[in-house]
Amino acid sequence: MSLIIIGSVAFDAIETPFGKTDKIVGGAATYASLAASYFYKNTKIVGVVGDDFPKEAIDTFTEHGINTEGLQIKAGEKSFFWSGKYHNDMNSRDTLVTELNVLENFDPIIPDSYQDCEYLMLGNLTPIVQQTVINRLKNRPKLIVMDTMNFWMDIMMDDLLKTIKMVDVLAINDAEARQLSGEYSLVKAAKKILAMGPKYLIIKKGEHGALLFNEDQIFSAPALPLAEVFDPTGAGDTFAGGFIGYLAKVGTINFNNMKNAIIYGSALASFCVEKFGNERLLNLTDKEVADRINQFVNLSAFTIEA
Amino acid sequence: MSLIIIGSVAFDAIETPFGKTDKIVGGAATYASLAASYFYKNTKIVGVVGDDFPKEAIDTFTEHGINTEGLQIKAGEKSFFWSGKYHNDMNSRDTLVTELNVLENFDPIIPDSYQDCEYLMLGNLTPIVQQTVINRLKNRPKLIVMDTMNFWMDIMMDDLLKTIKMVDVLAINDAEARQLSGEYSLVKAAKKILAMGPKYLIIKKGEHGALLFNEDQIFSAPALPLAEVFDPTGAGDTFAGGFIGYLAKVGTINFNNMKNAIIYGSALASFCVEKFGNERLLNLTDKEVADRINQFVNLSAFTIEA
Repeated sequence: MSLIIIGSVAFDAIETPFGKTDKIVGGAATYASLAASYFYKNTKIVGVVGDDFPKEAIDTFTEHGINTEGLQIKAGEKSFFWSGKYHNDMNSRDTLVTELNVLENFDPIIPDSYQDCEYLMLGNLTPIVQQTVINRLKNRPKLIVMDTMNFWMDIMMDDLLKTIKMVDVLAINDAEARQLSGEYSLVKAAKKILAMGPKYLIIKKGEHGALLFNEDQIFSAPALPLAEVFDPTGAGDTFAGGFIGYLAKVGTINFNNMKNAIIYGSALASFCVEKFGNERLLNLTDKEVADRINQFVNLSAFTIEA
Repeated sequence: MSLIIIGSVAFDAIETPFGKTDKIVGGAATYASLAASYFYKNTKIVGVVGDDFPKEAIDTFTEHGINTEGLQIKAGEKSFFWSGKYHNDMNSRDTLVTELNVLENFDPIIPDSYQDCEYLMLGNLTPIVQQTVINRLKNRPKLIVMDTMNFWMDIMMDDLLKTIKMVDVLAINDAEARQLSGEYSLVKAAKKILAMGPKYLIIKKGEHGALLFNEDQIFSAPALPLAEVFDPTGAGDTFAGGFIGYLAKVGTINFNNMKNAIIYGSALASFCVEKFGNERLLNLTDKEVADRINQFVNLSAFTIEA
C-alpha cells in the first residue's frame, strides 16, 4: 500500500523582503512529498521534469524514502519554472515568470508498481491531468485529496467540477472557496462545495489557520503566530503533504483523525516558511516535530467546566 | 465590589445587505454592559446621553441589573449618533454620519457608590476621558481592560500611550495592533505593545477569532463560522463586555481564566451579530449561552496522543 503524490516538480526563483534566491528546487509535489515523508514511509511521486533537473534533487527524494519511478525526465526539455516576488505583508505576491516547459503536455504515467495506491494527493495541476491519474489507477484509492486554484475556475470550470466530484477531500484557500461557490460566507460556501461531491472540505486561511467541514461538523485549526515568515512558498503544499501523510500513517479516515492531520499539516507548514524554499523540510528531527505539535496544542487548548 | 463600564451610550442607524434601521439604541457601553450582565450581577455604567434618549432604554439596563447612576442625562442636548453602511463582505463599512453631541464635552463623573470598582472596562473614547476615569477612582481596580481605535492613534498618540501604560489588558483589532506597533507580524506587534505597559494584549481578528498574548504565552481563540452575519455593529464591545464580565464572575486573574473569558466574550459576540443592534443580547437564556459555549469547545478541540 502506498501514498501517491502528483504535482509539479520544478524550479522557483523567489524574492521576499528578506532576500532573493536563484533557481531553487520547488513544486507542489516536492513540498508535499517531503512533508508526507515525515509520517509515512511509502510515498511515491508522479510528475515530470526536464533534463536540466539536478540529480542531487532526485537523490534528496530517495534519501527521504520517496519513490521517484513516476517522475518522468524529458530529454532535451526544461523543467517548469516559476518566479515570484512577495510584498511586504507576505500575503500577496506578483508572479514575475511562469514557464510551463515540460508541464505543457504532461501525460501522467502511472508505473505498475504504483497500482498499490491507497492514498492519493492531487497537487494543483490542470483538472484533466488530475482526473487522468484517478482513471489510470485500477483500484479507486481509499482517500483522494485534491488541491486546485482560481486559475482553473476561470478557464475550465466544467472539467474542474468533474474532478472535484471524484475526490474525498478538497483543500483550497478562502478566496478560492468563495470563487468556487459564489458565496462570501465560508459556511455557505462549504455547504455548496460539499454538495459538489467531496465528503470533506478544507479551507486554508494562511496566518488565520484552517477550517475543516463535513456534513455536520466544523473544526477550526489555529495557525502558529510567527514572528517572521521568511518565505511562504510551498506552505500550502507542505500542509497538504503533512495532512495526507499523517492520515496514511494512522490508516483510519474519520473526523477526529482529519482534525489531527490538519494540525500535523499546519505544523510542517510552520517549519516550511522559516527558510527559503524547502530547506527547512530537509532535516527535521522527530523532536522538532513533536515540540511544534505541542506548541499547537498549547496554543488552542482551553478548559471550560460545563 | 463592582464592574464599571465606561463608553458611549448612543443612537445608531445601520444599513447592511440585509436591511436598514432607523435610529436604534447602541454605543459601546450599551453592548458591553448587556453582555457583562449575563455573567456578573453588579455592573455599572458611566456615560452620557441627551434628553432625547428613551426612558425605556434606561429601563432595559435596569432590568438587566445594570446600575445607571453614572449615566448622565443632559437636558436640552442630544445623544451621540452614528450612522453607517456595511459593504457586502460585512468586514468593511462606511461611516455616513457622526454627531458627537453630548460626547463632545463629556466629563465622566464617578458616583460615590461606584468607588467599590474592582473591574474596569474602558470602552473606546478619547484617551483623556479614559485616563480621567482611572484617576477618579480612589482605589486602583484589580483589573483594567481598555479598548481604543485607530482614530486616537492618528491624532493623540502621546495621550493614548499614557493611558495604555495604566491598564492591564488592551483589546484592539489586528489593523490597530499593526498601526500602534509599526509591525506587520502580530507576534512582533504584541511584543512591542506589551512593552508599552499592559500585561495582556488581545488582538481581535473578527471572523478569524482572537489572539491573547502575555509575556510568554499565546492563546488562539476561534470564531464561530457563521452562515449569516446580519449586523456586526457592537460585536467588539459585546466581546469585551462578555470578557470582563466573565473575569469579574470568576474573580481570579490568570492566563487560563483569560482564555475562557475570551471564549465567553466570543460566544456573546456571535449572538450579537445575528440580529440588528443589541436585539439578540436582550433575552438570552442560560441554555442558549451554554449551548453556544459547547459549540466553541467542539469547534476547536482535538486530541493528539504524544
